[in-house]
Amino acid sequence: MEQPKRIVIVGGVAGGASAAVRARRLSEGADIVLFERGPHVSFANCGLPYHIGGVIPERARLLVQTPQSLMARFNLDVRVNSEVQSIDPGARTVTVRNLKTGQVREQPYDALVLSPGAEPIRPPLPGIGDPRILSLRNLDDMDRILAAMAGATRALVVGAGYIGLEMAEAFRERGLEVVLVEKLDQVMAVADADMVAPLHGELRAHGVDLRLGLSVEGFEPGPEGLTAKLSDGSQVVCGLAVLAIGVRPETALARAAGLALGSTGGILVDEYMRTSDPAIWAVGDAVEVKDTVLDGPALIPLAGPANRQGRIAADNILGRKSVYKGTQGTAICKVFGLAFAITGQSEKVLKRKGVAHHKIYIHPADHATYYPGAQPLTLKLLFDGEGHILGAQAVGAAGVDKRIDVIATAMRGGLTVHDLEDAELCYAPPYGSAKDPVNMAGFVASNVLRGDTALWEPEELEALRPDQVLLDVRTLQEFQAGTIPGAALAPVDELRDRLDELDPAKEHLVFCQVGLRGYLASRILSQLGYKVRNLSGGYKRYRMSVGGA
Amino acid sequence: MEQPKRIVIVGGVAGGASAAVRARRLSEGADIVLFERGPHVSFANCGLPYHIGGVIPERARLLVQTPQSLMARFNLDVRVNSEVQSIDPGARTVTVRNLKTGQVREQPYDALVLSPGAEPIRPPLPGIGDPRILSLRNLDDMDRILAAMAGATRALVVGAGYIGLEMAEAFRERGLEVVLVEKLDQVMAVADADMVAPLHGELRAHGVDLRLGLSVEGFEPGPEGLTAKLSDGSQVVCGLAVLAIGVRPETALARAAGLALGSTGGILVDEYMRTSDPAIWAVGDAVEVKDTVLDGPALIPLAGPANRQGRIAADNILGRKSVYKGTQGTAICKVFGLAFAITGQSEKVLKRKGVAHHKIYIHPADHATYYPGAQPLTLKLLFDGEGHILGAQAVGAAGVDKRIDVIATAMRGGLTVHDLEDAELCYAPPYGSAKDPVNMAGFVASNVLRGDTALWEPEELEALRPDQVLLDVRTLQEFQAGTIPGAALAPVDELRDRLDELDPAKEHLVFCQVGLRGYLASRILSQLGYKVRNLSGGYKRYRMSVGGA
Repeated sequence: MEQPKRIVIVGGVAGGASAAVRARRLSEGADIVLFERGPHVSFANCGLPYHIGGVIPERARLLVQTPQSLMARFNLDVRVNSEVQSIDPGARTVTVRNLKTGQVREQPYDALVLSPGAEPIRPPLPGIGDPRILSLRNLDDMDRILAAMAGATRALVVGAGYIGLEMAEAFRERGLEVVLVEKLDQVMAVADADMVAPLHGELRAHGVDLRLGLSVEGFEPGPEGLTAKLSDGSQVVCGLAVLAIGVRPETALARAAGLALGSTGGILVDEYMRTSDPAIWAVGDAVEVKDTVLDGPALIPLAGPANRQGRIAADNILGRKSVYKGTQGTAICKVFGLAFAITGQSEKVLKRKGVAHHKIYIHPADHATYYPGAQPLTLKLLFDGEGHILGAQAVGAAGVDKRIDVIATAMRGGLTVHDLEDAELCYAPPYGSAKDPVNMAGFVASNVLRGDTALWEPEELEALRPDQVLLDVRTLQEFQAGTIPGAALAPVDELRDRLDELDPAKEHLVFCQVGLRGYLASRILSQLGYKVRNLSGGYKRYRMSVGGA
Repeated sequence: MEQPKRIVIVGGVAGGASAAVRARRLSEGADIVLFERGPHVSFANCGLPYHIGGVIPERARLLVQTPQSLMARFNLDVRVNSEVQSIDPGARTVTVRNLKTGQVREQPYDALVLSPGAEPIRPPLPGIGDPRILSLRNLDDMDRILAAMAGATRALVVGAGYIGLEMAEAFRERGLEVVLVEKLDQVMAVADADMVAPLHGELRAHGVDLRLGLSVEGFEPGPEGLTAKLSDGSQVVCGLAVLAIGVRPETALARAAGLALGSTGGILVDEYMRTSDPAIWAVGDAVEVKDTVLDGPALIPLAGPANRQGRIAADNILGRKSVYKGTQGTAICKVFGLAFAITGQSEKVLKRKGVAHHKIYIHPADHATYYPGAQPLTLKLLFDGEGHILGAQAVGAAGVDKRIDVIATAMRGGLTVHDLEDAELCYAPPYGSAKDPVNMAGFVASNVLRGDTALWEPEELEALRPDQVLLDVRTLQEFQAGTIPGAALAPVDELRDRLDELDPAKEHLVFCQVGLRGYLASRILSQLGYKVRNLSGGYKRYRMSVGGA
């Protein structure tokens, strides 16, 4: 098979850069031209908030490659400040405008790779044109934010997704007051609401003025600074505002060239990352992917998948059949001292799509509690009736990434919750437990599937029936420190001796702190013929469900 | 199916304790009696070295359960200081001796679980009876070591496996001089020698007098303390010595009862953890397991598997078919600031058993290098010609446990090295890289299998042929700071311009620091028709192979 001689790549970050260097590794003979609209290629876009926050002091560290270094090492013809304005699929050429000189030229290709990325959404609000209203996508944006911070004492961040949260933290690191406005009742829209309560607490504990359930309705320049009007009628006066309410795939170029788009609005590609035009491939945040759990179309803008897609496009261009298997949605975000991570589908998406599922919560420590420094984490596991894992989320100060990575890998391997029971993971007291959180999640999920325990959910408290009783099976001290209103105390260690106090006609809704003692109580009672269910995730889950951490 | 009424368990730690509490969760009606020879049950045996070292200051934290707490919560009849002296499989009784009172009684059982553990090996050396020569298995041993430390200024540790290394660290934490003697030329016998060089450096950097390739030939009480005679004729004078040269399964009881032993000397069990006697199960360090990689018999004393086996034995006793799928050998050890972890088989075992395999080494950082605190780690991956993962080892200051856990899970899921390329793992700069070390390992391994790169090994330096040339493709600075003797410099970024300096008749053995630039150089040269191989793991691997860190 003859290899394409001229490979043209549009977009020099993540997916585009990966495609270019992979193409070179496969073909010393190809002419590879990389066009990038901005002045930089292959920069560390995930590092931008950390330079703003001062955690990465040297700006130069963000420049992973330069046009010169790519030329030297990979013999790539890298053209920065070069905007591809149109594609002629028939002639197989692109029209490129040099943004410095204004010069326009045509560039022929045998194979074209589009990696335009996704652009921050900028809604048409009154006053949106104020130069103090910024977004964060590239180094220029970062420099603008740094410049705007100079005289500012307060920053407004609109949107509490990954970038919004990282920016709120960055501004606090720099000593600014921060107002974080989020339209939803929770931060991190990809997460289930019940898993992010600890993030709300962490943000507020670090001085972020978090305002949930509000949106910005307009901006106005005022005498004391930029004034944002919120949907509840309040105002925020700030020195700068960062919009981080999401991104949309950049598809203008693809659309104009007649390439097919998917139902999500992203560029449609097949499993080889090829578009509807056989000479054009597309990768990264601009393309529609298949999610690996539900097999449906999705937009999942993440750095890892973008890199892999670039590599895969280059493989296929150069005659190697290489398949992109879809995106699982594994992601993590640092929020001050906590991490939140997710893989697969959330409960809310499963509900929205009508996918039958079970869920369990556990609150283990990241390593053996008798070894210093153990930190609590909360892990939520979603699975179907056969035990297939549909998704997982975790939040905590340590060990969150490890558990989500292990579960993500188990999902890729088609393992079930029963296999998580058996997972053989590293154990020494500084690193884990003989029964790792992943094993514990497997135990609890398997108990549900085997019918060993029936669970109840905090929402049921809204409509308790007269034939239901709430039973706190923790200790007196724990009970006195706070319990669910209406609960009676019956410590699990006394339960066998106090059976005469129970009414066999009633359903006993037991709970403990994290779910383990409640499970033991439920095993005792159910074996003795009592009707019993255990609060999923225990009192800690109840606290999270009412907004406590 | 009728459930056994009387369940008797011998051994109250890990496997035995797990079996007991699992049995109770499944059966409120069973009589469960747990005999433990020592004074404690269910203690944190993995925590013992850390209490000796002072990292876990409170001794009470090691007592996870007490006989009283197990009675209260699980209604278990726990008998400590109770040694089971014999089993009568015909009568289904055990004879138990109370070590405090001397009283002997018979206890009938319907189902018996043996969890006797493994005992530290104590070779019959001259002077071995000295009370200052100790082992570490339980709390009594720990207390004896703590007492012996009181007047001591120097400790001798014999054997550099998990316990030996943890004890060496513990003694250093307490300010003692430490001599660590190991018969092999490396610490951590389960590891491949080429992966533990950093541990040797770490031990010495923390003041441990590490003496490899030596054994202790005898002890003698001397005027200045206990004197150990080493195989090289030297002597070590110390206040106490800890023997940590390995353990052997405790099988005396099982043998006397006529139970079958396996070829490894452990108690033979089937996949349900049942021994050759249908009413007797066995779990934990005393049993022979199947290793999950080669499917062969093995002794793998680890806490996680022991716990799972106990649970599985209880399941099967109480009528639930539950299968133990074998032991993978996932383990980790902290050595001062480093961690070493392993899963699956080592290269030396694969070689010994004649299993064809490939191997690759990578030296990535645990997270994005532009984010502060990134630490280097070394990862070795072993795989077969179809890409099935046979084992992995890693060493480094951070992120070691996570990568080995992910690979261990991939192995359980039957994933290949190609799947590691695709693994979608948590990425944000504080936690990982867009191309995680696991992905990188997958890339390098897949490159080998696809024939994209040919590797050379440091051992080949011992017999270089005249038609081979060594080519250092790093920078001048790196070259000047140290290279492989005889290497010429040809930085990868200049390679395309300096092809006329290369002799097409020769084989070019290229290398860089960690293997990546060497790979790029090998791609350039091989595509242009040159004979070329890349040093597996780069100069860093070479340094490790000659004992450097």
